[in-house]
Amino acid sequence: MLTVYLSGEIHTDWREEIEAGAEGLGVTFTAPVTDHEASDDCGVAILGAEPDKFWHDHKGAKLNAIRTRHGIETADIVVVRFGEKYRQWNAAFDAGYAAALGKPLIVVSLPEHQHALKEVHAAALAVCDQPGQVAQILRYVLTGKLPV
Amino acid sequence: MLTVYLSGEIHTDWREEIEAGAEGLGVTFTAPVTDHEASDDCGVAILGAEPDKFWHDHKGAKLNAIRTRHGIETADIVVVRFGEKYRQWNAAFDAGYAAALGKPLIVVSLPEHQHALKEVHAAALAVCDQPGQVAQILRYVLTGKLPV
Amino acid sequence: MLTVYLSGEIHTDWREEIEAGAEGLGVTFTAPVTDHEASDDCGVAILGAEPDKFWHDHKGAKLNAIRTRHGIETADIVVVRFGEKYRQWNAAFDAGYAAALGKPLIVVSLPEHQHALKEVHAAALAVCDQPGQVAQILRYVLTGKLPV
Amino acid sequence: MLTVYLSGEIHTDWREEIEAGAEGLGVTFTAPVTDHEASDDCGVAILGAEPDKFWHDHKGAKLNAIRTRHGIETADIVVVRFGEKYRQWNAAFDAGYAAALGKPLIVVSLPEHQHALKEVHAAALAVCDQPGQVAQILRYVLTGKLPV
Amino acid sequence: MLTVYLSGEIHTDWREEIEAGAEGLGVTFTAPVTDHEASDDCGVAILGAEPDKFWHDHKGAKLNAIRTRHGIETADIVVVRFGEKYRQWNAAFDAGYAAALGKPLIVVSLPEHQHALKEVHAAALAVCDQPGQVAQILRYVLTGKLPV
Amino acid sequence: MLTVYLSGEIHTDWREEIEAGAEGLGVTFTAPVTDHEASDDCGVAILGAEPDKFWHDHKGAKLNAIRTRHGIETADIVVVRFGEKYRQWNAAFDAGYAAALGKPLIVVSLPEHQHALKEVHAAALAVCDQPGQVAQILRYVLTGKLPV
Amino acid sequence: MLTVYLSGEIHTDWREEIEAGAEGLGVTFTAPVTDHEASDDCGVAILGAEPDKFWHDHKGAKLNAIRTRHGIETADIVVVRFGEKYRQWNAAFDAGYAAALGKPLIVVSLPEHQHALKEVHAAALAVCDQPGQVAQILRYVLTGKLPV
Amino acid sequence: MLTVYLSGEIHTDWREEIEAGAEGLGVTFTAPVTDHEASDDCGVAILGAEPDKFWHDHKGAKLNAIRTRHGIETADIVVVRFGEKYRQWNAAFDAGYAAALGKPLIVVSLPEHQHALKEVHAAALAVCDQPGQVAQILRYVLTGKLPV
Repeated sequence: MLTVYLSGEIHTDWREEIEAGAEGLGVTFTAPVTDHEASDDCGVAILGAEPDKFWHDHKGAKLNAIRTRHGIETADIVVVRFGEKYRQWNAAFDAGYAAALGKPLIVVSLPEHQHALKEVHAAALAVCDQPGQVAQILRYVLTGKLPV
Repeated sequence: MLTVYLSGEIHTDWREEIEAGAEGLGVTFTAPVTDHEASDDCGVAILGAEPDKFWHDHKGAKLNAIRTRHGIETADIVVVRFGEKYRQWNAAFDAGYAAALGKPLIVVSLPEHQHALKEVHAAALAVCDQPGQVAQILRYVLTGKLPV
Repeated sequence: MLTVYLSGEIHTDWREEIEAGAEGLGVTFTAPVTDHEASDDCGVAILGAEPDKFWHDHKGAKLNAIRTRHGIETADIVVVRFGEKYRQWNAAFDAGYAAALGKPLIVVSLPEHQHALKEVHAAALAVCDQPGQVAQILRYVLTGKLPV
Repeated sequence: MLTVYLSGEIHTDWREEIEAGAEGLGVTFTAPVTDHEASDDCGVAILGAEPDKFWHDHKGAKLNAIRTRHGIETADIVVVRFGEKYRQWNAAFDAGYAAALGKPLIVVSLPEHQHALKEVHAAALAVCDQPGQVAQILRYVLTGKLPV
Repeated sequence: MLTVYLSGEIHTDWREEIEAGAEGLGVTFTAPVTDHEASDDCGVAILGAEPDKFWHDHKGAKLNAIRTRHGIETADIVVVRFGEKYRQWNAAFDAGYAAALGKPLIVVSLPEHQHALKEVHAAALAVCDQPGQVAQILRYVLTGKLPV
Repeated sequence: MLTVYLSGEIHTDWREEIEAGAEGLGVTFTAPVTDHEASDDCGVAILGAEPDKFWHDHKGAKLNAIRTRHGIETADIVVVRFGEKYRQWNAAFDAGYAAALGKPLIVVSLPEHQHALKEVHAAALAVCDQPGQVAQILRYVLTGKLPV
Repeated sequence: MLTVYLSGEIHTDWREEIEAGAEGLGVTFTAPVTDHEASDDCGVAILGAEPDKFWHDHKGAKLNAIRTRHGIETADIVVVRFGEKYRQWNAAFDAGYAAALGKPLIVVSLPEHQHALKEVHAAALAVCDQPGQVAQILRYVLTGKLPV
Repeated sequence: MLTVYLSGEIHTDWREEIEAGAEGLGVTFTAPVTDHEASDDCGVAILGAEPDKFWHDHKGAKLNAIRTRHGIETADIVVVRFGEKYRQWNAAFDAGYAAALGKPLIVVSLPEHQHALKEVHAAALAVCDQPGQVAQILRYVLTGKLPV
């Protein structure tokens, strides 16, 4: 009966991979909106157009914050995935947010980002590079069973 | 009698610029260790060498966390500067950490990073691109005086 | 499975409009007592008459506070509606109360009140003028779907 | 050695009246910026002009929030004054903010606003209509002496 | 779906009176152990006899604290009843405990105790002298209906 | 550099006894207003007369709460003295308030009240019957020296 | 509907004894992983081998912390058992962790450890030496029934 | 201007070693009472003799808790030293207490205790075996200077 928030990269199927690996454990997974376009434009689509890109993005980021902060604050565990593309400052922001709330943090990242992520890794209870390892962690945490 | 933590970029003199601009206001400025080499190697220098780069960095990042978390937690305002170089995930992490603690957040960033920083900007009470503006904000917040 | 507290104006059907628009989302809506007369007289009706209007109102306001604070404190999102009539200080009070607790705040207000509400708006994650937009926000936050 | 935040009305000299009445008590008084024009324009003056009045006000209200939230959060007592003019939703917002943080709240208001302020009054530890009474309260709280 | 903790007097049937009056509201009522003898002797009965009355009582009071603190901390509303007999310091202690946690407090007390209870009353959102009034308050808070 | 709040009985000189015994330790002692008459009448003296004794006392108790809650909340240690006279529910209320905030609690009480105070004693880190023992505790806590 | 975390010794069947004794009470019991080998090796089994025993253990201890901290933080009561073997610093650590969170703490320990555990006992609401007594406590706390 | 609490072993001069190494840094060091006999007997010396060793120790441990919890709660950093002798459950308890409060934790321990302390180490930001390393950490954290 754990709730796990899956933050970060939205362009690969890592969330599905974890969910498949955690099947049968009764975990509830939450996540940000992963439709990139909707996520970018939600603010102006609902609250009205903005000629200035800053406020266009500002309105959207605040709407998304309603979901993401709720997701982090109600999670038992927060997983943050850093992928290959983009600057991913929102992923690092979520990791800091989760750390300050004392949430157990699991980071999934690439070996080539090791040095750049050292402060984020230092705040994590587990660091891995494959989403499947997150599922193994959840299985161990909930059942005490290790992968064979 | 404000304490202001200056997080982020350590390769330009933006901290000195803010401190100069805030002269006479009685602000106490705190910051991470800005000696890049010391910051990278502090863990092994004090706690013993590590053959594996991950643990080398891990030891250092945790020592630095003693300073940075204390700095953020005892600050009245947290300023985070995103510069031109590196991935700067630690800056975004600090911003998330400060936001979760409810600290007033001021972000100093470059126009070309606007879209990538939209979630961080959405959590800030002020976004600017010049360190001098931070000094102006501090002067206004403390004295009510605007720049002429 | 969100709980949303609908604070403010009690003389129009804006709550019903939001509830209709959010149908099927599984949102639980809470609100103050919206029967104006009962809300004004509850204190003396239950706890005994008061000759002084101040204490008459005081007893009632405290009984209502049992409901409103519980509503705000257990909500995932707080929506505050400023209407056309009355001074509505209780609405602004609720907004401040919600903001201090870190609750995501959505404000529904009239264009002519923009300047007077700027401090309240600055604390909100969304500002709109139609109740229907609140329903759209809730739909987006829960499902990622934007209005067509 | 109390710190008292004086929120609300900025067009009369009520703050000076309290400060004069509390002379010799060693109270530190804090307050929002009371220069109306600076308070309205601080955002654009420091962070750049905005064609849209909403964002003009938004930038300013957020800068002012750095000062006002710090003032409320570090105060031992919060005094909120409701005057004759304007809608004063920021005053009610501050009262709600202070109440949620558990700050002792003193309200100074006009008799004709009694009914409209009943929820705010219900959250206060003292309600009065003269600033001089606030000074008397502070003197009593600090020294146990009542007015002669 | 409120949880209401009923603290205080254990020698009359005031709890049953409230529960009967609140029938159909879906309120969950919690309370201390109301079997006086069991409450007094639970410590030594389970943890072993004590020759010294102080430690006899100490062991029991701590066991009871497991239940009472859990009851107060998980309650949405705390009701404290002061009856005619005994010193009832535990009732006043519970009231202070609830107040410090920000729990809405309802006090049921006798007119002759008015002056002696003034500090406790000042922390309450409602003061009454009949248990039936508590049921009326709960009905109003949950349904908005006043007694006819 | 400890701050110690001395709650409870106001009709004997137990506070002076503790202060004398703790001389030279650098402890700051705080306390409620101990002028019984001023404490009873402060509300109406400053905020206006009330024909009803309940509201007369209510106004006063709330003014006193400004001082007493500040005293408890800023104390490092809370001492509560139960004397021979009166019902002293405010003392027990303060003890509960302090306990809920996690403040170290020292109780000074009479042997004949042992059973009636068992819940309060169970929340205390020390129980004694002489004020001089409180001074000895403070000396030990600050210097490690025991009475000879 | 209590949740009880059973921390400490993993080499005897004390948990089963408590669970059997608490049958029918509706208590949910949680615990660390009690498979000693899995608990020791979980880190490297999932996250990769470490040549250095310190990091081998570090990875494992952090994975286990995901479970144990969640267990303590979501528990209504924390029971810590000190057995005959090993140093059991993790049990004492859990007791301190629970105490700092204000969780009701029950300690099950051996008479010969009385002096060495005095600080842990001082933080507990009950100290006993038989697991069956824990079941009796739970039964009393939930039903008010004492053992016959 | 850091405050550092030095918990644990009281039979060697490790505290003096750290204080000497940190000379000139302006650190305030706090600690438990390190006079073993006074620490054991303080309870009965001040509060009266107890025939039962459990209560003898209980009274003392609670008095010591006034000092140790205050020390941990007001510290910026908590250092816990595990020495060669005794079971040192109070040291592990303090470490857990500090961890739950989010205090940066530094552990000084012996290599032969590595496996037994793995849960405590996992909660620490630094693990070392020489007190002098703690002084080096404090110097680095405060000045950015590494040992030569």
